[in-house]
Amino acid sequence: MSQKSQGKQKKTAIRFLREANFPKWYQEVITEADMAENSGVRGCMVIKPWGYGIWENLKARLDQRIKETGHENCYFPLFIPLELIEKEAAHVEGFAKEMAVVTHHRLVSKDGKLEPAGELESPLVIRPTSETMIGESFAKWIQSYRDLPVMINQWANVVRWEMRPRMFLRTSEFLWQEGHTAHATEDEARVETAAMLEEYRALAEDWLAIPVIPGEKSAAERFPGAVETHTIEAMMQDGKALQAGTSHYLGQNFSKAADIKFQNKDGGESFVETTSWGVSTRMIGAIIMTHGDDDGLRVPPTVAPRQVVILPIARDDEATARVLPAADELVKKLNACQAFGNPIRAIADKRDMNAGEKRWSWIKKGAPLIVELGPRDLDQGTVMVTERTDIYGKSSHNTDEFVAQIAQQLQGIQDRLFNEAKAYQDERLRTDIVDLDGLKKFFKKDKYANGGFVRGYWDESEDSEAALKPLGISIRCLPYDQPTEPGTCILTGNPATKQAIFAKAY
Amino acid sequence: MSQKSQGKQKKTAIRFLREANFPKWYQEVITEADMAENSGVRGCMVIKPWGYGIWENLKARLDQRIKETGHENCYFPLFIPLELIEKEAAHVEGFAKEMAVVTHHRLVSKDGKLEPAGELESPLVIRPTSETMIGESFAKWIQSYRDLPVMINQWANVVRWEMRPRMFLRTSEFLWQEGHTAHATEDEARVETAAMLEEYRALAEDWLAIPVIPGEKSAAERFPGAVETHTIEAMMQDGKALQAGTSHYLGQNFSKAADIKFQNKDGGESFVETTSWGVSTRMIGAIIMTHGDDDGLRVPPTVAPRQVVILPIARDDEATARVLPAADELVKKLNACQAFGNPIRAIADKRDMNAGEKRWSWIKKGAPLIVELGPRDLDQGTVMVTERTDIYGKSSHNTDEFVAQIAQQLQGIQDRLFNEAKAYQDERLRTDIVDLDGLKKFFKKDKYANGGFVRGYWDESEDSEAALKPLGISIRCLPYDQPTEPGTCILTGNPATKQAIFAKAY
Repeated sequence: MSQKSQGKQKKTAIRFLREANFPKWYQEVITEADMAENSGVRGCMVIKPWGYGIWENLKARLDQRIKETGHENCYFPLFIPLELIEKEAAHVEGFAKEMAVVTHHRLVSKDGKLEPAGELESPLVIRPTSETMIGESFAKWIQSYRDLPVMINQWANVVRWEMRPRMFLRTSEFLWQEGHTAHATEDEARVETAAMLEEYRALAEDWLAIPVIPGEKSAAERFPGAVETHTIEAMMQDGKALQAGTSHYLGQNFSKAADIKFQNKDGGESFVETTSWGVSTRMIGAIIMTHGDDDGLRVPPTVAPRQVVILPIARDDEATARVLPAADELVKKLNACQAFGNPIRAIADKRDMNAGEKRWSWIKKGAPLIVELGPRDLDQGTVMVTERTDIYGKSSHNTDEFVAQIAQQLQGIQDRLFNEAKAYQDERLRTDIVDLDGLKKFFKKDKYANGGFVRGYWDESEDSEAALKPLGISIRCLPYDQPTEPGTCILTGNPATKQAIFAKAY
Repeated sequence: MSQKSQGKQKKTAIRFLREANFPKWYQEVITEADMAENSGVRGCMVIKPWGYGIWENLKARLDQRIKETGHENCYFPLFIPLELIEKEAAHVEGFAKEMAVVTHHRLVSKDGKLEPAGELESPLVIRPTSETMIGESFAKWIQSYRDLPVMINQWANVVRWEMRPRMFLRTSEFLWQEGHTAHATEDEARVETAAMLEEYRALAEDWLAIPVIPGEKSAAERFPGAVETHTIEAMMQDGKALQAGTSHYLGQNFSKAADIKFQNKDGGESFVETTSWGVSTRMIGAIIMTHGDDDGLRVPPTVAPRQVVILPIARDDEATARVLPAADELVKKLNACQAFGNPIRAIADKRDMNAGEKRWSWIKKGAPLIVELGPRDLDQGTVMVTERTDIYGKSSHNTDEFVAQIAQQLQGIQDRLFNEAKAYQDERLRTDIVDLDGLKKFFKKDKYANGGFVRGYWDESEDSEAALKPLGISIRCLPYDQPTEPGTCILTGNPATKQAIFAKAY
């Protein structure tokens, strides 16, 4: 258990510094914050209460917004018959290399060993995404323009087999929501695609304090089967990009594959226009790599499983008898308050362990506020408060005043996290690189500090994008806010009308 | 679309009467209430918004109670390696016949056809339940008595391959929660097992208005690997039993299989004592078969996705211009009220369709309250209210008074549903059958009206229970409330100390 002294030489709670070894720092934060662990199944992780609690709070918020914007939740099967997924050619090609396949439906014991038995007539794949299954239902549900739009969502697990798994970022199984809608017109479908990307932007920025760049993906980076893919791209503290949510305009590709037709207002028959959009547990990786520091995780108060942790400080039985009930009382008062539209989530940590170790366990978990409460505090009617964003800035406050301003204080921490991350991103968004050489040089700089994002003109040519691949650089998106003047493509020197974001990426 | 007239000859909204063909009635209610549909995958269903909404409300309540009783949510992998599930012999034997097995991790195209490729070194089974995977984690998490108890839960999908699937009741994939706990002592584990069964009883009776008989399962009916299985048994309207939730005391069976040891207070090493408990989407089947009537579903107001449905009645544009905003206003007022500790869920159904058809669609869905609102109602400041438990009892109410008493009215409907179901169950619980002949005769009576439950003495002998199997009768449980006097086993005529519930079952 690493400890930190208040002496001159700062020690950190995480063994690896971000700047020294970002991937190991990331892994270590997950372990020290007790968020997740590897399981006995390659590429699959166990999400522990602190990690899952963040997901539950993220989910509650997004689910509320999905419903407020007119969508209803459903549940579709885990399995997809091979003959169905084959229908959309680009789609199946995109996912063929990473699909888990079920071939048997029971086990038999043979020579004391279990073996698969009961071979299926036709294998089933485990959903990597559900356009196929949902398309089958849409074809049944939709007959007339009166049945449109259909706007649904599901919260589910999906499987995309990973050869190089990393917790939260790339796992063979992950949790997500996938929204699927069908519309009468292209216009409506495009409006929906944009509206849901805007929901994701708001979720990232306003709820998770993660600044993002919204934009459209290049053709090469599109979702398999989509006409357009829109994305929010976040910058991690190693300068790399993380695609944090995507919204796809699918046109009639899936409706033609699944034969989703409707009688239009003119009495003719048309294929519906569909969209899909998703956000996954990958977002937890984004939270870690955006907000974490060398002492562990820092969780935005909006989604912290515990926003306030009371640590009762008592050296003897007499003190314990006074302090524990006072801690419970304080939890009760706090939980009666609201922040971010929900009741405060406070607890008293009464575990029987070393006080310093206990305090550090919450710092590493990133609980926004740690409140120490000892007999002297009780005498004075005060509490000793530490903000996770300023762990050496302990200060004493009148208890009632502390409770009265709790929502503002949490909002203050939330804002600080966003502003810090925004400043980081702004600082590392380069707009002064004008050619391929400059680009190469910029991204070669450092193994872990990958420099950041480059924003520059691009002529949208396939070849120039493909040439970036061996360099480990990719086009993250064509941001929505574009200059009005044309310019020169930084990859080819050709004239270009649009700018793109170039970066190394997760 | 079937319609019902108010004439003498009552027609029903569901094509099949419960008493004529209960299984077809059940299927038809699911279709007409738009709760779920079959998918292209054998045994897997699509849960549509009205069915899923009920599940979401059930889940919210149970999740709250699971947390209030000290458990935390986690997430464990979908896959279980063969070599791990083999460890607990009784467990794997119990599930071997119904496990989906993943053998490959990608697809390749061969002669224009997709085929599984990338064979796994060792196959993975899809979890039928998670004792195995969670045991592996417990073994890592638990070192000392200070780490105990560990009390966790997960909401997940599980797969148990079904040869004779029925929607909600027996599906190859289903949704559930599974709680798993580890304790230092047998006593604590037994207390936990009982406490969670009591939570399930409360969920069924107090939240879903489903009366149940709590008790212990016979040895033959135990969960594979359990020392004791406790259950709540509900009676469906065909007299059959439905096991609606189970809580297992697992002793040290799984801790020995997964080597979950801890240093106890005396410095020695002990195996932990574990429990597990689960409730699934099967509960939705219980709701249908307990509360449905010949006009469709009746949803308990606690879990109804929409508790109040406003139907604007307008024959022309002028009326529409008055009625629609008034309907929105009423929804707003209602949604600002609370019932059962949550905001009211009301909507205005503005679909452009025949008014009678629209009204019947909500009756079939079982929305607790249907409120018609036309120009004349607006003039009078009234609403025309129909309770789903009394669809021919329309009555007019002052709008403000209606809003003011909404919580009580919903509570009244909730109580009525419970009381009706309880009366049904009490009436069909026979205690006057004293021997095997009587038992046989009772259960032969009728194909669909399976008579109900028989409560009688049983000597707990394996043979006598096994002999019931060919008769299609099973021992549902040994209820907790037992007589103090011994008696005579109704199966064998031997002396017996305990009574059991005998029934046909789902």
